[in-house]
Amino acid sequence: MTARTEGRTMHSSPHQHGHTTHHARSVALHRAAVTELLTPLVARKKTERLALRDALGKGLAQDVAAPLSLPPFANSQMDGFAVNSADVPESGAKLPVVVVPIPAGAVPAALGGGTAAAIMTGAMLPAGADAVVPVERAIPDRFPAGGEASTVWLPATAAGTFVRSAGSDIALGERALAAGTFLGPAQLGLLAALGIAEVTVRRPVTVLLATTGDEVVEPGRPLPAGKIYDSNGTLLESAMRQAGLAVVRTAIASDHPDEFRSLLRSHAGAVDMIVTTGGVSQGAYEVVRQAMEGEGAEFLHVAMQPGGPQGIGTFDGVPFLGFPGNPVSCLVSFEMFLRPVLAELFGSPAPRIPVRARLGHGLSSPEHKHQVRRGTLQGDGTVRLEGGESSHLMHALAGSNALVHVPVGVSVLAEGDEVEVWML
Amino acid sequence: MTARTEGRTMHSSPHQHGHTTHHARSVALHRAAVTELLTPLVARKKTERLALRDALGKGLAQDVAAPLSLPPFANSQMDGFAVNSADVPESGAKLPVVVVPIPAGAVPAALGGGTAAAIMTGAMLPAGADAVVPVERAIPDRFPAGGEASTVWLPATAAGTFVRSAGSDIALGERALAAGTFLGPAQLGLLAALGIAEVTVRRPVTVLLATTGDEVVEPGRPLPAGKIYDSNGTLLESAMRQAGLAVVRTAIASDHPDEFRSLLRSHAGAVDMIVTTGGVSQGAYEVVRQAMEGEGAEFLHVAMQPGGPQGIGTFDGVPFLGFPGNPVSCLVSFEMFLRPVLAELFGSPAPRIPVRARLGHGLSSPEHKHQVRRGTLQGDGTVRLEGGESSHLMHALAGSNALVHVPVGVSVLAEGDEVEVWML
Repeated sequence: MTARTEGRTMHSSPHQHGHTTHHARSVALHRAAVTELLTPLVARKKTERLALRDALGKGLAQDVAAPLSLPPFANSQMDGFAVNSADVPESGAKLPVVVVPIPAGAVPAALGGGTAAAIMTGAMLPAGADAVVPVERAIPDRFPAGGEASTVWLPATAAGTFVRSAGSDIALGERALAAGTFLGPAQLGLLAALGIAEVTVRRPVTVLLATTGDEVVEPGRPLPAGKIYDSNGTLLESAMRQAGLAVVRTAIASDHPDEFRSLLRSHAGAVDMIVTTGGVSQGAYEVVRQAMEGEGAEFLHVAMQPGGPQGIGTFDGVPFLGFPGNPVSCLVSFEMFLRPVLAELFGSPAPRIPVRARLGHGLSSPEHKHQVRRGTLQGDGTVRLEGGESSHLMHALAGSNALVHVPVGVSVLAEGDEVEVWML
Repeated sequence: MTARTEGRTMHSSPHQHGHTTHHARSVALHRAAVTELLTPLVARKKTERLALRDALGKGLAQDVAAPLSLPPFANSQMDGFAVNSADVPESGAKLPVVVVPIPAGAVPAALGGGTAAAIMTGAMLPAGADAVVPVERAIPDRFPAGGEASTVWLPATAAGTFVRSAGSDIALGERALAAGTFLGPAQLGLLAALGIAEVTVRRPVTVLLATTGDEVVEPGRPLPAGKIYDSNGTLLESAMRQAGLAVVRTAIASDHPDEFRSLLRSHAGAVDMIVTTGGVSQGAYEVVRQAMEGEGAEFLHVAMQPGGPQGIGTFDGVPFLGFPGNPVSCLVSFEMFLRPVLAELFGSPAPRIPVRARLGHGLSSPEHKHQVRRGTLQGDGTVRLEGGESSHLMHALAGSNALVHVPVGVSVLAEGDEVEVWML
């Protein structure tokens, strides 16, 4: 098994530390390659119609046009008196009042000329009224009791004041949500406000997740000397499920290429894509690389730290991504490549929104790589780095709430320098 | 029903617009009141033991100490040659090599004095070795083929170089995660790395969610004139489920206080708390207020826009929060009061992390209120406001990705001013 490592050269090494890797692929190019790999899934992936409550976290499959205007009718923004602004001169006016307040939900009688109508927040403006005077600006500043014949003094008010006009939020026929929109609470709330009870969404992408390594043991079992527990499987399955993906897990794969191919083939028919962890670099025992190179996958180095060694391609026609074996590298690979591409293609998961923060302390980064550090964004807008550059620091990752980006071309940053941060 | 509105005065009005409300409760005080209301739930709320995959999004119930160190043993950070640094003088040395590389997962034989051992990334360092020289710094810069008796020239290297020492991430017995930690992918990944397969979490808080109003119609049904569709139910149920709460929905409640009390009583035994929407201000038809005032709930005004009118207390001993009736007010109430308090008390949902952004354009805000605007955080670190101050703008909310905070005491902000933003 060591034979394949003999030809390695300095420049093809995935394990250089702080050295330049001039022919490594950029993050942007690798992300574009992932987009190209997964784009055919969009056409193949079926849609389904779901009740709103079941559509939370899904990606909208089609544009939705507003079947009605919001608000559907002009209504009062305040508890007060509906008037025709022309009935109140600059100096104010004393007007007879329709004393029973118009409740929300009712269709009021038209407003008589030279009168005012008590009206509650959200109630339909009577025909003939074009403004609302809040009750606390009237004299007396209260609603007349039921049955009481009454007049009220009102100040002058401009047409439209405290009126929510029909269609002021969205007009009938306007696009309410675009295909590909992530359906969170606000988007589902808008659909409900439009009277829409069901929506067409894309079915979740199903990922076959295989963690590899003879050294890796399932959590909960005894740990022989020299072995480590598999954290990649739990970490990535959780990240994928949180992102709305369906996940099929294989047993932990051994380091035998034939067994590994069989394991993948026993599941691959039922999934949309394959993600593996480990076995992608140029060492002596790289099962993913050995099993899949020549089967439609290539193995390369991305100018990123951690997460440089990456596999990409197809296996038996199924799109494949091979992430490296360290847990932090796995999560960084997911966040840098799979999540943004799925967000772009499918509308779900929601993309990470870049925010700006100031470094709580200085850092160094290999100039020719995009470094992704873990950190905690604090309330004062500074970000504290957690752990070092090293990709095995799970405890530090678990104490972080953000990824901190140091782009290519930057080798030193000082305390107070501004960086791009993604909240986890 | 109008009788109860007669006593209203200018200062008790919940519908003042841009006026001072000197005796309104501050956001911080109301949040503290919500904390006090819900704190007894923590002791009452049972825990459960779940497999890691089922614990995603839950709050950890107990501290977890590391049952082993991470890494469990000193291992190599690189593919290279394990050496005893004392065997390599300043000028380097040519050493005989143990040619079959130590794979990850194996327990290697002790290193013979004055020799080097080929070793793969993650493999256990042999006894007697204290440093690793990356293969690309060796001469020749490759691993010898199997069976080949070989020597290799290695440069001098300091003890500890490219070695991940045992416990460098976390030491045996150290607290890995604190009680109350939100269990996301990284936290579950850490537990897996520690070999832990099950974890004790708090059971989700169950909320009875009741939307009210004679004017409100279930989405999917015909819309009579003067009525609107219920978006609050979908919006809040989604937000609560996304935050890990269990939600029980009532039918839309009518504006009859007796019916409303009966509706709540038919569900209240099975839930931890009650949240209502609408009917909390001082208008003529305020069913929540009319049904619950005097039953252990109070209705007050918080110095916040939108979302000022709030109800809080108990109903038949069950903690109760009454949010206002407009959808944006509902979401703001959830984000400002319920989410942070649950995050603090239960460890789930995850709290919003405040980020800093620059305003894309100026705004005004009532000086005595905490204003919460909706906006879109852009890639350049500026935030664009979506819609105006008004709380009925669902379409604008659905196009936003952030809440923008304008604290009490600030009435005008200019383009470029820094604001606190919560990503939605």
